[in-house]
Amino acid sequence: MMIQRNGDDPRIYRRMYRGEGTVTAEWYFRETTRLGAHVMMYTLAPGTSEGLHLHAEQDPDSCSIDDADELYIVTRGSVVLTVDGEQVQLAEGDAGYAHVGSLHGVANTTDEVARLMLVWGSPADRIENEEEESR
Amino acid sequence: MMIQRNGDDPRIYRRMYRGEGTVTAEWYFRETTRLGAHVMMYTLAPGTSEGLHLHAEQDPDSCSIDDADELYIVTRGSVVLTVDGEQVQLAEGDAGYAHVGSLHGVANTTDEVARLMLVWGSPADRIENEEEESR
Repeated sequence: MMIQRNGDDPRIYRRMYRGEGTVTAEWYFRETTRLGAHVMMYTLAPGTSEGLHLHAEQDPDSCSIDDADELYIVTRGSVVLTVDGEQVQLAEGDAGYAHVGSLHGVANTTDEVARLMLVWGSPADRIENEEEESR
Repeated sequence: MMIQRNGDDPRIYRRMYRGEGTVTAEWYFRETTRLGAHVMMYTLAPGTSEGLHLHAEQDPDSCSIDDADELYIVTRGSVVLTVDGEQVQLAEGDAGYAHVGSLHGVANTTDEVARLMLVWGSPADRIENEEEESR
């Protein structure tokens, strides 16, 4: 089987999307996955945040070249997730889903370390939309 | 945004795939996700296990009607993941990847509760394989 230990593919993002502090992350099977979505673990020290950003292929403000829906699941502690101006506090086991083109970001406003699992990828109905446009 | 609180879509699997005890789970955005993979959180009390099983569309022993690759990431505690007879202990932040057709299962052999994130779906190269077969 394929195994990845925590720390095998570490990422360090300073002031991510103009957020505060440093987000540390682990990207799972980035080169080898055959799944239709990518998976990353975020660790946010107290006061750390990911600034507001969006993923939409044809938007000049996009932080990625591809469209992506993004799912955030809290696995430790608690965070504030903001999507298009709506703010929610998410505790362990809670999740939020940001659609393509939504302006979103996450912040740890607590005194404890927070962890999140991120799962993101091209939305499945994107292909249908493209087919419709090409008719 | 779409929000799911822990407990909004709970699952209880007794002696899952002939394993021991009861696996409790939360399935995230099962009906509404547009991602190319499904996401579930497993909670395994001490002594709980998921029996060995496989996901392969044309295999009579398969536990699902679809092909699936499956990614297991430990978010709390520690588990033993078995894939095709190979056993590994995975701690928090460690991950294992089981390919379509591999016989796999997970067990919590510790005295603490363990949690896992599961991400699974049809492997991307399946379509390529089908195209090759149809030539």
